[in-house]
Amino acid sequence: MLSTDEKFMQLALDAAETVLGKTTPNPAVGCVIVQQDKVIGTGATSKAGGSHAEVHALAQASDKTKGATAYVTLEPCSHYGRTPPCVDALIKSGVSRVVIACADPDPRVSGKGIEKLKISNIQVEVGCKAKEAIRLNRGFLSRVVRQRPWVTLKIATSLDGKIACSNGHSQWITNCRAREAGHQLRAINDAILVGCGTIIDDDPQLTVRLPDQPERSIWRIILEGKRPCPPNAKVLTDQHRNSTLILSTLKTGEQSHQRVNCKTTADGQQIDLHDAMNRLTAYNINAIMVEGGSYTACQLLKEGLVDELHLFRAPIIIGGDGVSVISSLGLQRVDDSVKLHQLQSQALGDNQHESYLTDSGASFMGQLHNTLATPS
Amino acid sequence: MLSTDEKFMQLALDAAETVLGKTTPNPAVGCVIVQQDKVIGTGATSKAGGSHAEVHALAQASDKTKGATAYVTLEPCSHYGRTPPCVDALIKSGVSRVVIACADPDPRVSGKGIEKLKISNIQVEVGCKAKEAIRLNRGFLSRVVRQRPWVTLKIATSLDGKIACSNGHSQWITNCRAREAGHQLRAINDAILVGCGTIIDDDPQLTVRLPDQPERSIWRIILEGKRPCPPNAKVLTDQHRNSTLILSTLKTGEQSHQRVNCKTTADGQQIDLHDAMNRLTAYNINAIMVEGGSYTACQLLKEGLVDELHLFRAPIIIGGDGVSVISSLGLQRVDDSVKLHQLQSQALGDNQHESYLTDSGASFMGQLHNTLATPS
Repeated sequence: MLSTDEKFMQLALDAAETVLGKTTPNPAVGCVIVQQDKVIGTGATSKAGGSHAEVHALAQASDKTKGATAYVTLEPCSHYGRTPPCVDALIKSGVSRVVIACADPDPRVSGKGIEKLKISNIQVEVGCKAKEAIRLNRGFLSRVVRQRPWVTLKIATSLDGKIACSNGHSQWITNCRAREAGHQLRAINDAILVGCGTIIDDDPQLTVRLPDQPERSIWRIILEGKRPCPPNAKVLTDQHRNSTLILSTLKTGEQSHQRVNCKTTADGQQIDLHDAMNRLTAYNINAIMVEGGSYTACQLLKEGLVDELHLFRAPIIIGGDGVSVISSLGLQRVDDSVKLHQLQSQALGDNQHESYLTDSGASFMGQLHNTLATPS
Repeated sequence: MLSTDEKFMQLALDAAETVLGKTTPNPAVGCVIVQQDKVIGTGATSKAGGSHAEVHALAQASDKTKGATAYVTLEPCSHYGRTPPCVDALIKSGVSRVVIACADPDPRVSGKGIEKLKISNIQVEVGCKAKEAIRLNRGFLSRVVRQRPWVTLKIATSLDGKIACSNGHSQWITNCRAREAGHQLRAINDAILVGCGTIIDDDPQLTVRLPDQPERSIWRIILEGKRPCPPNAKVLTDQHRNSTLILSTLKTGEQSHQRVNCKTTADGQQIDLHDAMNRLTAYNINAIMVEGGSYTACQLLKEGLVDELHLFRAPIIIGGDGVSVISSLGLQRVDDSVKLHQLQSQALGDNQHESYLTDSGASFMGQLHNTLATPS
C-alpha cells in the first residue's frame, strides 16, 4: 500500500470522526477527492436523511473530478435509501480510482458497491487503514453484524478500585477534567445504560453536558431488575423523557411506550442481557455506554457483553471497606479473570484516562478485519 | 545556575545511583572532578568502611586537580569516621570550586564541611540539582532527620484493585517483568517488611532474586501481631535467618536476638508503628519496602508512615469478591482519602508500573529541600 494513499485516507477518517455520534443509524463516513496529489473535495455524512460523505466531497470538487481518486472510509452504498446510491454519483463524476478503507457488511451494500464500481472500469482498492475505519464505526458495524450495540463500560475509581466510601459517599473521586471527558464519551455514543439501582440511589439526569454546548440527550436506558423504576425519576419526567427506555422483565400493569419487555434467564430470576442488548437494534442504537452501578457492570462483564472499557482513575486510596467498582464475579482462579487489552492512556491533570478492549471486543474487531478489509 | 554545572552534577548523580543500596549506613554519593570543562575523575561511595566518592574521584584525577571544580551530590564530610574527612582531601587537592547538590543533615557534618571549604578560600555553591540528590538519598536523609526509614509500599493489583480471588488464589496477577522490577526495588532498599499474616499464609523467602545475580538477602522485618511468627518459617530458618528482625509486642518466653520489643498503642491492642519504625534506626536501616499484606499496608497508611507507593497493575478484572489491596480505612468522606502524587509511570509489557509520593513523603521532601538546598 502506498503511503500517499494512507495519508489521504487519514484525511477521510478525520472528516468522518467529526460527525461520529451525529449520523446514527447511518455510519460516520468520510470522503476525500484527490486530483494530481491535491485534495479538491472533502465530505462527511450528514445526519440521517441528509447527503452522504461522497456527495459532499464530489460537490466541493465540482468539475475537476475526471480521472481523480476518491478515498472513502466505508464501501459506498449502491442502493436507494433516503438518498440515491453514492456509487452512481462516483461513476458519474468520472473518478478513475476509488480507495476504500473497509467493506460495508450491511446486506443492502455488502460487496455490491465495490462490484458496481469495478464493472464501470473504476480501479478499486480495499483495506487502506481498515483497522482505523473499523474502530471508528465499531458501533454501526456491531449493530449490523451482531444485532447488538457496541458496549462500552465507563468506570471512575480510586487507585484501589473503589467508587465510594462504605456509606456511599462518592463526590468527587475523579476531577472535573475526567468528568468532562466522560461527557465527551457520552456524546459519541447513542445511549447511556444504567441499572435501576443507580436511578433509585442517585436519580441522575444522564444527559450530555459539555462546555459551550446546550444540554442534549441521547437514549437513556434503564435495566430494571426486581425493583421497579420510580415513576418520578428525572429520566422519566424531564424534558428528555421520550429518549428513555426501560428494559424490563417486570409485568407491570402499565406498559408505557418507554418499557421494552425482555426475556428472563433460564432460571427466571434475571433479565436475559443478550436479549436486552439485541432489542436495542430495533431502536437503531449503534453504541451504548454503561455507567453503573457495579452490579450492572458485573453482570454485563460476566455475559461477555462488554466490548470496551474506559477507566478514569484518581490518585487516591479509599480502602477495602469502600464500594468496589465491579461486584462479585465469583472467580476461583486468577486465570479466569476478565482480560483487557490497552488501547490508550492519557493524563487529565492528576487523573488518568485509560481505554481497553475486552476479549469480546478484540475478537469482534479481529473478525471484522478478516471479513471487511480484504473482501473476496 | 549554569547548565554546565547541572550537566556535571548529573554525572555525579549517575555515579551515586550505581551504588544505591550498597553503601548503607552511609549515603550513596557521587563525585565528578572537572578541569577546563573536561571530566578528569569520577567516583562513588564504596561500601561502609571503604573510601568515599570524593577520594575515588580525586585519585582518578591524579595530579591534574589544581584549580579544578569538584561536583559532589552531598556535602563532603568534615569528621573522622572510618575514613579521614573528604573535605581535607578536597582542600589538599587544590580544587578551586566545589559544587554541592545538598547539605548533609548528619550533625557530625551539617554545614561544617561547607564552612571548612570556604575558610580554605574554595568557592562553594550549594543547591545544584538538589531535588534529585535529595530524592536519591531519601532513605539516608529520613533516618538521619526523622529517625525512621523511608517507607515504600509496594502493591501488585488487578485493574480493580484486587490482590487475590476470594479463596486467596493470587498466582499470578502481574507478569514476570513486573515481578522482576519488584526484585529490583528490593535491591535498592535495606529491608522488606511484611505482616506476620503474610509469613503464616505464604511463608515467603523475601530475598533479592535477580537474573544473573546470586540470591542475596536484605533485612527481613516481620510485624508480629496477636499471632506469633511460626518458628519454622523460612525467614527464621534459612541461611539468611540472621537478617530477620521481628518487631513485636508479644511477651514470649524466648527473646531471641531477632525479636525487637516495641511499645503498644494507647489502647494496648496493637503495636505502636511509630515506635516500631523508630527502632529500625538502631539497625542503620535507611529505606524499607512494605510488601504486605493488605492489613499491614492499611495500618501504616493510617498512621501516615508510608512515604512512597509503587503500584504494579495488570490489565485484568477480578471482581468485588476478590481481596482488596488495602484493608478497611473506615473513611466517611472521599475528601478524607489517602492522597498520592504521581512520580513516574512505565509500561512493563501489558503491565503498568507507577510510583507515587504520599502527602507524608511529599511534605518530608519539601522540608528537606528547604533546609538542605540553600543552607544559611
